[in-house]
Amino acid sequence: MQLWGGRFAETGDERVADFTRSIGVDQALALDDIQGSIAHVHGLGRAGVLDPAEVDALIAGLEGLRADVAAGRLAWDPALEDVHLNIEAALATRIGPLAGKLHTGRSRNDQVATDMRLWLRRTIDDLDEAILGMERALVGLADRDGGVVMPGTTHLQPAQPVLLAHHLLAYVEMLERDRGRLADTRRRANVSPLGSGALAGAGYPLDREATARELGFDGVTANSIDAVSDRDFVVEFLAAAALGMVHLSRLAEEITWWSNPRFGFVRVADAFSTGSSMMPNKRNPDPAELVRGRAARVTAALSGMLGVLKGLPLGYQRDLQEDKPPLFESAATWGASLLVMAGLIDTLAVDRKRMREAAAEGYTTATAVADALVRRGVAFREAHRIVGSLVAEAERAGIGLDALADQMVVDALRSSDDPAARRLADEEGVGEAVRSSASIDGALAASDVIGGTAPARVREALAAAKARLDRR
Amino acid sequence: MQLWGGRFAETGDERVADFTRSIGVDQALALDDIQGSIAHVHGLGRAGVLDPAEVDALIAGLEGLRADVAAGRLAWDPALEDVHLNIEAALATRIGPLAGKLHTGRSRNDQVATDMRLWLRRTIDDLDEAILGMERALVGLADRDGGVVMPGTTHLQPAQPVLLAHHLLAYVEMLERDRGRLADTRRRANVSPLGSGALAGAGYPLDREATARELGFDGVTANSIDAVSDRDFVVEFLAAAALGMVHLSRLAEEITWWSNPRFGFVRVADAFSTGSSMMPNKRNPDPAELVRGRAARVTAALSGMLGVLKGLPLGYQRDLQEDKPPLFESAATWGASLLVMAGLIDTLAVDRKRMREAAAEGYTTATAVADALVRRGVAFREAHRIVGSLVAEAERAGIGLDALADQMVVDALRSSDDPAARRLADEEGVGEAVRSSASIDGALAASDVIGGTAPARVREALAAAKARLDRR
Amino acid sequence: MQLWGGRFAETGDERVADFTRSIGVDQALALDDIQGSIAHVHGLGRAGVLDPAEVDALIAGLEGLRADVAAGRLAWDPALEDVHLNIEAALATRIGPLAGKLHTGRSRNDQVATDMRLWLRRTIDDLDEAILGMERALVGLADRDGGVVMPGTTHLQPAQPVLLAHHLLAYVEMLERDRGRLADTRRRANVSPLGSGALAGAGYPLDREATARELGFDGVTANSIDAVSDRDFVVEFLAAAALGMVHLSRLAEEITWWSNPRFGFVRVADAFSTGSSMMPNKRNPDPAELVRGRAARVTAALSGMLGVLKGLPLGYQRDLQEDKPPLFESAATWGASLLVMAGLIDTLAVDRKRMREAAAEGYTTATAVADALVRRGVAFREAHRIVGSLVAEAERAGIGLDALADQMVVDALRSSDDPAARRLADEEGVGEAVRSSASIDGALAASDVIGGTAPARVREALAAAKARLDRR
Amino acid sequence: MQLWGGRFAETGDERVADFTRSIGVDQALALDDIQGSIAHVHGLGRAGVLDPAEVDALIAGLEGLRADVAAGRLAWDPALEDVHLNIEAALATRIGPLAGKLHTGRSRNDQVATDMRLWLRRTIDDLDEAILGMERALVGLADRDGGVVMPGTTHLQPAQPVLLAHHLLAYVEMLERDRGRLADTRRRANVSPLGSGALAGAGYPLDREATARELGFDGVTANSIDAVSDRDFVVEFLAAAALGMVHLSRLAEEITWWSNPRFGFVRVADAFSTGSSMMPNKRNPDPAELVRGRAARVTAALSGMLGVLKGLPLGYQRDLQEDKPPLFESAATWGASLLVMAGLIDTLAVDRKRMREAAAEGYTTATAVADALVRRGVAFREAHRIVGSLVAEAERAGIGLDALADQMVVDALRSSDDPAARRLADEEGVGEAVRSSASIDGALAASDVIGGTAPARVREALAAAKARLDRR
Repeated sequence: MQLWGGRFAETGDERVADFTRSIGVDQALALDDIQGSIAHVHGLGRAGVLDPAEVDALIAGLEGLRADVAAGRLAWDPALEDVHLNIEAALATRIGPLAGKLHTGRSRNDQVATDMRLWLRRTIDDLDEAILGMERALVGLADRDGGVVMPGTTHLQPAQPVLLAHHLLAYVEMLERDRGRLADTRRRANVSPLGSGALAGAGYPLDREATARELGFDGVTANSIDAVSDRDFVVEFLAAAALGMVHLSRLAEEITWWSNPRFGFVRVADAFSTGSSMMPNKRNPDPAELVRGRAARVTAALSGMLGVLKGLPLGYQRDLQEDKPPLFESAATWGASLLVMAGLIDTLAVDRKRMREAAAEGYTTATAVADALVRRGVAFREAHRIVGSLVAEAERAGIGLDALADQMVVDALRSSDDPAARRLADEEGVGEAVRSSASIDGALAASDVIGGTAPARVREALAAAKARLDRR
Repeated sequence: MQLWGGRFAETGDERVADFTRSIGVDQALALDDIQGSIAHVHGLGRAGVLDPAEVDALIAGLEGLRADVAAGRLAWDPALEDVHLNIEAALATRIGPLAGKLHTGRSRNDQVATDMRLWLRRTIDDLDEAILGMERALVGLADRDGGVVMPGTTHLQPAQPVLLAHHLLAYVEMLERDRGRLADTRRRANVSPLGSGALAGAGYPLDREATARELGFDGVTANSIDAVSDRDFVVEFLAAAALGMVHLSRLAEEITWWSNPRFGFVRVADAFSTGSSMMPNKRNPDPAELVRGRAARVTAALSGMLGVLKGLPLGYQRDLQEDKPPLFESAATWGASLLVMAGLIDTLAVDRKRMREAAAEGYTTATAVADALVRRGVAFREAHRIVGSLVAEAERAGIGLDALADQMVVDALRSSDDPAARRLADEEGVGEAVRSSASIDGALAASDVIGGTAPARVREALAAAKARLDRR
Repeated sequence: MQLWGGRFAETGDERVADFTRSIGVDQALALDDIQGSIAHVHGLGRAGVLDPAEVDALIAGLEGLRADVAAGRLAWDPALEDVHLNIEAALATRIGPLAGKLHTGRSRNDQVATDMRLWLRRTIDDLDEAILGMERALVGLADRDGGVVMPGTTHLQPAQPVLLAHHLLAYVEMLERDRGRLADTRRRANVSPLGSGALAGAGYPLDREATARELGFDGVTANSIDAVSDRDFVVEFLAAAALGMVHLSRLAEEITWWSNPRFGFVRVADAFSTGSSMMPNKRNPDPAELVRGRAARVTAALSGMLGVLKGLPLGYQRDLQEDKPPLFESAATWGASLLVMAGLIDTLAVDRKRMREAAAEGYTTATAVADALVRRGVAFREAHRIVGSLVAEAERAGIGLDALADQMVVDALRSSDDPAARRLADEEGVGEAVRSSASIDGALAASDVIGGTAPARVREALAAAKARLDRR
Repeated sequence: MQLWGGRFAETGDERVADFTRSIGVDQALALDDIQGSIAHVHGLGRAGVLDPAEVDALIAGLEGLRADVAAGRLAWDPALEDVHLNIEAALATRIGPLAGKLHTGRSRNDQVATDMRLWLRRTIDDLDEAILGMERALVGLADRDGGVVMPGTTHLQPAQPVLLAHHLLAYVEMLERDRGRLADTRRRANVSPLGSGALAGAGYPLDREATARELGFDGVTANSIDAVSDRDFVVEFLAAAALGMVHLSRLAEEITWWSNPRFGFVRVADAFSTGSSMMPNKRNPDPAELVRGRAARVTAALSGMLGVLKGLPLGYQRDLQEDKPPLFESAATWGASLLVMAGLIDTLAVDRKRMREAAAEGYTTATAVADALVRRGVAFREAHRIVGSLVAEAERAGIGLDALADQMVVDALRSSDDPAARRLADEEGVGEAVRSSASIDGALAASDVIGGTAPARVREALAAAKARLDRR
């Protein structure tokens, strides 16, 4: 059963059938395809193209198929090219020649566009839940180990002490943006192409808006040529997915290095680790590594889809068939990655002591010291230079900034071009002041702005995140 | 003047300076950088970190620099690494050591994030105007040559007749989605990172929200680590740009082929054509070809940026410097492509006669004929098969469907398994009925649904597009 | 059976097992894995790690498994993670605990690297044959329709007449370069990593070179860390595949447009066409469109793989598991595309008359006319300008260059700044000379250089291609 | 001066000129363009198209221009579109109307293809030198700190001890493959397209092979249409560059993490570090980070170029202009990255003590212990399991494998299903034997295969690398 055999003389080449069939991939659309067909039959009934008895028989047949598909009872026949032909053939088996009226006023072009938008809509809803699950895991860990101090790094070098909860909440921000992008994509995608026909618009007086409402769409596409040529919603989703995977890959990278015994910041649970076939000592954070690797592949799916579309004339071109593998695989990858990373974070053990030790390493309170000098009147650039020289001296001496001798401090201030610094050199207790501003807790508390790592600020941010998650 | 030289012993390697400097690229941010600095100075004043006289002097200096930059009078010094250090050094030259207080409570990490968001916001506003200009060009052409019929194609083969205006309005739909994506990107990007410091949050009691308001931001970033690590807005913009360029590349592809004399549908104006250095006969639509080629490069910019971010730990990493070339180049490419394509469309000459001739080729009214049979009771699948066999016969005879002999039609219907078709074979005038349903104008008129190509529907859509553009 | 369970307390999480298993993909390596294991057992025997009876029993077991796999009799157990564990478990079922000695002196890291190189080597050999098949199809068509003239185009506009055979032979050149790249990839890939262990080198006195010889490798990898970290051969193959697919996509694009009735240059056989579910008139060159679309996806596979590797520390990281889907899918896509395009070209019907008509369109002999003026002493730039003005006049008059009036030619020459042109204006018969140089056959014959389209040159090139293909 | 203005009525649009000009980019080809022109003039002379005096005058003019360009004295005029027109115009200024004969028998299509191949050839030669420089830096460091032991990692977790020299030599292997790919690319690219004309072959009896020899090409392209349509050599180079940058990015990633004080394995010299504008304590390995980020952009350049070519019909299309920015930028990025990374490695300080400490962490000798059990008759899988349980016990006890109590070892062996293991449990001194096999030096020495990390093997490999580099 080739639905278009009427004017063809030769029978097809099996290589060609192999090359062009899509049933192995697009069967994922089966339920969406049936849902769309049911609404289309209702529409044909409303338009008087089908009589009520025909409508009832077709709907009954389609509902039967829906049950079969949901139960995994429908066998896909590779000879029937794609999901649409498989379902129409199964319908014909079930209800006879009346099935031949199903495709009235419809083309596979507007049909598949409808199916994909239905599929995408429910997939986005599932992913939104999965992202929320990941947020809950992060917030949960932030809650459990909220007060732990760790070295905030830039350029992978110790920069300033931050709270682990603060670090984890940065990921929650990213995930919220991911949700925002998904919501925008959903909104733009949620319009009905049904009734656009092959490209010119259906040749029957269909009430497209009524059918759209039945399918839960917010409206109808406004131009039939665009409706069948458009895969913007695939690109937009893949862009959101690629960025979402990149976010997870950044966390995965951190987990991976933090698990190395040199860091020892965290221990991935056995259930999220694997071993080696040869080395009995190994405990590897494989899921995190796979997330990192798969992020590259979702990015590739996005650029591949843009490559498919580039320079494509309007109207359906068969190139568009190549939208499905990247779309389906990327959505599955993102969903599974969210699930696994949430589990990994839920069961992650944090070594508070090692984190705090590391937070003190690398003179991470130097900025706080410079800020303390600024508050005593030294210009920032000069304060930065003075503290830089103190760091260099402390490093040579192998001590921390909080162990500097008074004289070192005084000398550094005295040699400055800034009169304010030189005045400060003469003040009583300046060494002590510098030493005390170099404490981890002091440095933390100093970052007391919205979004800063001061403990009170982080507690507020955490409470807000929990409240938002609880509201759902 | 390296702003961080305090603890470094050796002087830098010139190769390293060459390799790391960004002033050649990030000078595009100069005005945004100064705008951000002015707001930051006001903020330091509000926080009491600077006294009013210091604020006034810094602002005066910065305003002077702003005028210099706007007038192209500031010479960029490659020895000064980046735009931030260049501007701070120029300020020092202008107002002396007080300039050393400008960077109080700020890091280049939150500074550059602020600059880029300001730059992106105004760039998006410019691009939105450019897209509207392109829409106006398309609508203008649709208006001038609105009634021209052309062959709608799928798989690049003639499918059904459509109006040129309908085809052009498909692009307007795409462009409107581009605008929607830009608006979403702008909304998510328009928050202020200023006050996030290097990554922990500024060590001064800055009122981040007041500064954000001064800069026209809708709010502040909620997490300081995220604020300096985040380049989502770059990715999101590049995704919108890549898709926007793909839209233009689809039009460019059509223009290019339609200009080939075998089609001869359109003639690109001399002003938008180039010739050959060797072949005196050539008239080439180069701008369209370049748009097509550059679409691939903007896609590459997007995937490159995702590649930069993939697996990057939080906190600023120098890898992030690689965000600027793809961002700046892609925005410029998109803007210029919109401008040039708008001009090309504005001056495009359409050959109505050739388009209409082509619309009749390839049996484009066959669907309308099948639909006519359906309206007379034949099931769609059977009508499709019957008309397919009529097309094959007409093709063998070298005639159109509207020239079929009555007997051919009767025979085709009579041989059907469908009783309705066989009944039809006996009806008086069935040949005539088939012939008349095979006219171009009849086929056009039949697509009378929302978004369809029926002339009345297209007129409505065109009027709606014009009204929307006029409202702006 | 997890081969690394010794030190793990918790049982795995099913989500993690789902996420990390690769048996669905890497079963493609089964025969290569067994081949490698057989050689490794021989090596362990040579090293005295296994005694002869153990060697014999292991080899017998592995040979049995090889037969089972080849016959499709081995059932893959998803609980057993990957192909290596599946095969080792099947071996244990077959020969008992002795199977536990198979993995002595080997890690999955060097094992999988070996498997992939064996797989790639045989895949390259298959692809080389497929490329030759495609070359034969092109040469066959060039032979059948060798003398047909068509419009050579640049910028998609008519440029100069060329022979169809010449155009087709351009693709043969591309395909030969594809073969060259495959051969280079094969040469660099064909070394044995076996004996590199997990990363430090096997802990047994294995004669790596003897094992490499047994496996048909040209040598051994020189550094064990590199041997397990290296996926250069995957990238190199994917780069060759992406470019090979791009070559096919260029041909596919041409076929697609040439099939449009406006061109009508070729007719794709029914067996390589499909129709429409809605439009009875359609005949679509779907395989060509799919080739074009899939070219984008193979390019994406390449950039995805580079993304996986970017920034990856040495040693096996689980990210590397993501090498298989792009590799396997891209090789399959390329192979199938070559097969289908060869069939399409073999059965392609050429419309000689329409091609020749089109070759005369667009003043394609203008360059030949300019060259004729040059031969009569006019400087090239001036000849180009003069002929350009003649083309413009002929276009206004709606005639060909071979129909220009004598006076037009004389006027154009006389108005030149070039004394040689003005002299020529006075020569007898200059109009006739210009007209005669404007013939298609004359223009063809003029391109009489190596690689040019002069019929004799093309015949030589075709003969050379046939001879090369016959030699194989 | 537009070289193709003859048939154009309107003057160009400035937006179009801006959009299409390439002189800002392709001026990099100036010397290659002149070199090609000189050879072409000689060819025209040999063909009798130019007389000896014309040849001499043109050559003299071109040589003068060559000197000007080399000295930076030629001002590029943006009104003159590209490098070819700029040079021809400059030649006309210098030698008058005779310059109008230079372009006889040549098109910009074969001209630019020639220029790019000449440019690529010399660029590849420069890059080959830069790669060798990088190899020397790695070998130099391996020589200085050859004996240092470090933890070989897989999955970023400690795996087995390896020598630092061994790790560094893995990169030398990668770089040698990079050189191999460049050499293959050079070989395939080094043929002359000159004489192919616009696409049909030049219309003059040019001896293409003689001109090719003069330009140092190994031969001529075999098909004129292919010659002007082909950018395979650009793709092939970009693929080599992308992989080469990925190699450097892997090293950069390691350097970056190894510089973190938690590792403290290496210290990047001040000259290759930068600081922070805000944090006085920072010392950042920026060049390594930039290499990592730029690797993503070179990969993007590759995929962009494949995107430009995908689906492009044969003949020059203006899309091909987009080959230059990715090609030029990627080559420059790779060259600079090699230079800077070589400098960074040359000046890198290694902390031997910390590396060795880390090498003992994570039970890295467990494999050596399992191998020792195998040598005493235990099957590998069982040995792996037993040692895995010993690692778990040692971890619980917080001790190394070399500190296990005899009883622990005996118990683990005795509980095995393997009779050989149980026999071993009864042997005298088995605990001592296990302890001694757990030493770092013993584990190192055990990897005594070609390419293994046994010190003697590494010394051999290092000597071979030095000898190879010395031979050049």
